Amino acid sequence: MMEVKHDPEACRKTILAVHDAMDVLGGKWKISIVASLGFGKKRYSEILKDVTGISGKMLSRELKDMETNQLVKREVVNTKPVTVEYELTEYGHQLKSVISNLADWGNTHRKKIMGK
Amino acid sequence: MMEVKHDPEACRKTILAVHDAMDVLGGKWKISIVASLGFGKKRYSEILKDVTGISGKMLSRELKDMETNQLVKREVVNTKPVTVEYELTEYGHQLKSVISNLADWGNTHRKKIMGK
Repeated sequence: MMEVKHDPEACRKTILAVHDAMDVLGGKWKISIVASLGFGKKRYSEILKDVTGISGKMLSRELKDMETNQLVKREVVNTKPVTVEYELTEYGHQLKSVISNLADWGNTHRKKIMGK
Repeated sequence: MMEVKHDPEACRKTILAVHDAMDVLGGKWKISIVASLGFGKKRYSEILKDVTGISGKMLSRELKDMETNQLVKREVVNTKPVTVEYELTEYGHQLKSVISNLADWGNTHRKKIMGK
């Protein structure tokens, strides 16, 4: 009897799907930005503060990419001065379980590395 | 009443944990390699075939990184010629739900992009 886990077709499909996801989420920052916006609508400056280490230029670029891929919505609010807010689209929100699993794993990893 | 989702402390912790995870899983290939090994122990050449587009040199480097971070185990099998096999450690296996969620999302993304 064949072992199901060695199913090459299922394996190939999974790798392809993961690859597609990482095409959109790849790079150093996007997943952190999704994690930040998972806690609600935010101003540009708030995201910049949340995502430690990102530059303003890089944040703008990443947010633009994510807007193109329909992960985030950008809204200009008519305050004085004007503020720009970002929030996850419904589609972006579907990454919630990915983010929460990654965070759980990251916590475990931190404890492991620190020798608990 | 404060909205829980705007809890800055929880937000900061989640972003930090995600960042820790991406430190280990970052780059173009590691998540795909974990996806490949999620389907069982494999020889080097099998992983190379699974992960479309990766070069041999890059695969060696990524596997070495992943061994250092205790995500994979390397085993030299005393065949003629010698074969080298890799498998996920128990710790690497804990990424299974991350991979499966990413794959689901990637599938949805593919359909969306292709206009379904």
